[in-house]
Amino acid sequence: MPADATQTTLALTEALIRRASITPDDAGCQRLIAERLERAGFDIAWLPHGDVSNLLAVRGGQGPVLLFLGHTDVVPTGPAEAWQSPPFEPTRREGRLFGRGSADMKASVAAFVTACERVSESAGDEGLRLAIALTSDEEGPAQDGIRAVAPLLPERLGPVDWCLVGEPSSHSELGDTIRVGRRGSLSGEIVVKGQQGHVAYPDQADNPLHRLASILTELVDGDWDAGTADFPPTRLQLTAVDTDTDAVNIIPGRASARFNLRYSPASSADGLRERIEAVVARYAPAGQVEWSHSAEPFGSPPGRLREAVIAVIREQTGQWPTANTAGGTSDGRFIAPLGAEVVEFGPVNESIHQVDENIKVEAIGDLSTAYEAIIRRLARNAPSAD
Amino acid sequence: MPADATQTTLALTEALIRRASITPDDAGCQRLIAERLERAGFDIAWLPHGDVSNLLAVRGGQGPVLLFLGHTDVVPTGPAEAWQSPPFEPTRREGRLFGRGSADMKASVAAFVTACERVSESAGDEGLRLAIALTSDEEGPAQDGIRAVAPLLPERLGPVDWCLVGEPSSHSELGDTIRVGRRGSLSGEIVVKGQQGHVAYPDQADNPLHRLASILTELVDGDWDAGTADFPPTRLQLTAVDTDTDAVNIIPGRASARFNLRYSPASSADGLRERIEAVVARYAPAGQVEWSHSAEPFGSPPGRLREAVIAVIREQTGQWPTANTAGGTSDGRFIAPLGAEVVEFGPVNESIHQVDENIKVEAIGDLSTAYEAIIRRLARNAPSAD
Ligand SMILES: [Zn+2]
Ligand SMILES: [Zn+2]
Repeated sequence: MPADATQTTLALTEALIRRASITPDDAGCQRLIAERLERAGFDIAWLPHGDVSNLLAVRGGQGPVLLFLGHTDVVPTGPAEAWQSPPFEPTRREGRLFGRGSADMKASVAAFVTACERVSESAGDEGLRLAIALTSDEEGPAQDGIRAVAPLLPERLGPVDWCLVGEPSSHSELGDTIRVGRRGSLSGEIVVKGQQGHVAYPDQADNPLHRLASILTELVDGDWDAGTADFPPTRLQLTAVDTDTDAVNIIPGRASARFNLRYSPASSADGLRERIEAVVARYAPAGQVEWSHSAEPFGSPPGRLREAVIAVIREQTGQWPTANTAGGTSDGRFIAPLGAEVVEFGPVNESIHQVDENIKVEAIGDLSTAYEAIIRRLARNAPSAD
Repeated sequence: MPADATQTTLALTEALIRRASITPDDAGCQRLIAERLERAGFDIAWLPHGDVSNLLAVRGGQGPVLLFLGHTDVVPTGPAEAWQSPPFEPTRREGRLFGRGSADMKASVAAFVTACERVSESAGDEGLRLAIALTSDEEGPAQDGIRAVAPLLPERLGPVDWCLVGEPSSHSELGDTIRVGRRGSLSGEIVVKGQQGHVAYPDQADNPLHRLASILTELVDGDWDAGTADFPPTRLQLTAVDTDTDAVNIIPGRASARFNLRYSPASSADGLRERIEAVVARYAPAGQVEWSHSAEPFGSPPGRLREAVIAVIREQTGQWPTANTAGGTSDGRFIAPLGAEVVEFGPVNESIHQVDENIKVEAIGDLSTAYEAIIRRLARNAPSAD
């Protein structure tokens, strides 16, 4: 580990943590980064949208594009008294750096910036176009961030070949897990109307809970798909059931249930909707489902970026990373539709969004070295890239 | 129809309706009745309990006991403006008598009293002990009414052979339905605790709704018993399902369901509890059920009282009444355990507990004539009663 990588990345991470950039306030993080990248030969474009700061930095005029995707915003800290040290005062204890954003994801951003600095000194990126896109709206509504920037990329960058997302993907050791896509998310509320009545006279009523119980059991037992090489099988979770009355002797007139599906690309949202509506219709012909589709699944087949990330992790740790598609969604979903191979590789996510968020000090330098090695590897192989 | 039966019963019913006897206030109803029964040769005992009035009137010194069971209290009227005529002002319109308590059950009480008067004039009850028990707490908590009186009856009356309950048992025509028992009522709340979590990570959670869905489907599909000759099969109704959270992306940590069983004497409350707890344990080993047992079933096998009631209805209407055990519970439940054969026969129950409660004027006289015929029939056959 070059002392240089550790020290410079740690210093930049600390400088970023000191800027209390709660969504959508960037608090000067991107300006600090832009100054450094400009010195490293990057062209800077500011692409603000609403009250959100977005930065696009590009270096190199030709070759395949490697885009690093990150965010400078952080989630709120909760009561500062609950923290062992002030959340916006980077503090080292027992080999760890504490502070809001340390793991999600200011260390990753700093690591990529210092990796670019080292690479640019030795022209180690020759044959690549290196790009960095940062937003201050990833943790918030995510409307004015990468979602707004993505449509501008083809004109500014040409086709994006590879997108490396620095989100905290690791589970217990840096590099033990990378993400190669995210599942889709589809929610629904089933409403079954019956006929209210007294429990003593069920034949004069129509108990919507009885219809709903059968529907829910079938949904819970449902075998939706077998997943794909990268995606686990689609899963459904019930989140709530409710009735319009709760008197002990009244058959309710209406019952409802909410559920969420995390689905693999082996299923489509339309196909899932159809199957579920058929189950509802079988037990409750007048039943209705109100849908809310919050994310399409995205994922890339194995390609050169995944190969490079895995090879570098193997070299540095001697371990094979798990490549999965777990977790919530990420800004990678806006880049994947451009045709890019998207891989997420970043710190351990154990403490993110919590009090006393932290990252191992050692991991900060390791991450920068790893990003540097990934860039160099892709650049070396770039001429043969298709 | 003797004009006398109609006119005297109508007049007494109207006099009772004018007394606004909302539970537990008897408002003088029982005193009025006691005066008439005394003149008809009854001995009167006042058995007040708490603020509830209870009257026991007995005539005849020997022979099997026929006890008429009734109540003088009525349910509240709701807003009096909602009534077409004031609720405590008996009003005849289109062949009907309107007023709170007209159908439930001042006409029945009046009909039995006038039937006793006519019977006593001709000594038509010779060979029977005729008794009337009235309370002003049937519609309320039912703690200080017949529940408190029943234990006193063996000493005051000896064994009760037959108990005729004047509750409105008829469906659309007087005498189309009589009740020969009531089902038991057992309620429960199933609570399943799981492990709350995010819908994206179901393996780190334990969804209590998934366990509950299987439990509920099995309960809804449950085949509890086949009923008896008089009782329909036991039925279960779900009344409510709830969760401790209802966020769209949170797997709840706790789910609960409430249900009620109306059960026949072919099942016991203990047996039902055991079976349901076994279903819960199969899907949710840590699940719990909180029980509330509000009524044991009661019912009498066909006997002389049922025979007499059906024969009289046949004679008067030419129709076979349906004998069933539907509906809520009644004070008959306190008399059945004394070993009495209990039959309920009274007016059409369509309007009871509602605005514009009413009874057909014609039915008031018919009911008195029918009660008279039942008394005479039982008296005639009394010597051979076992
Ligand atoms: Zn993040
Ligand atoms: Zn009643």
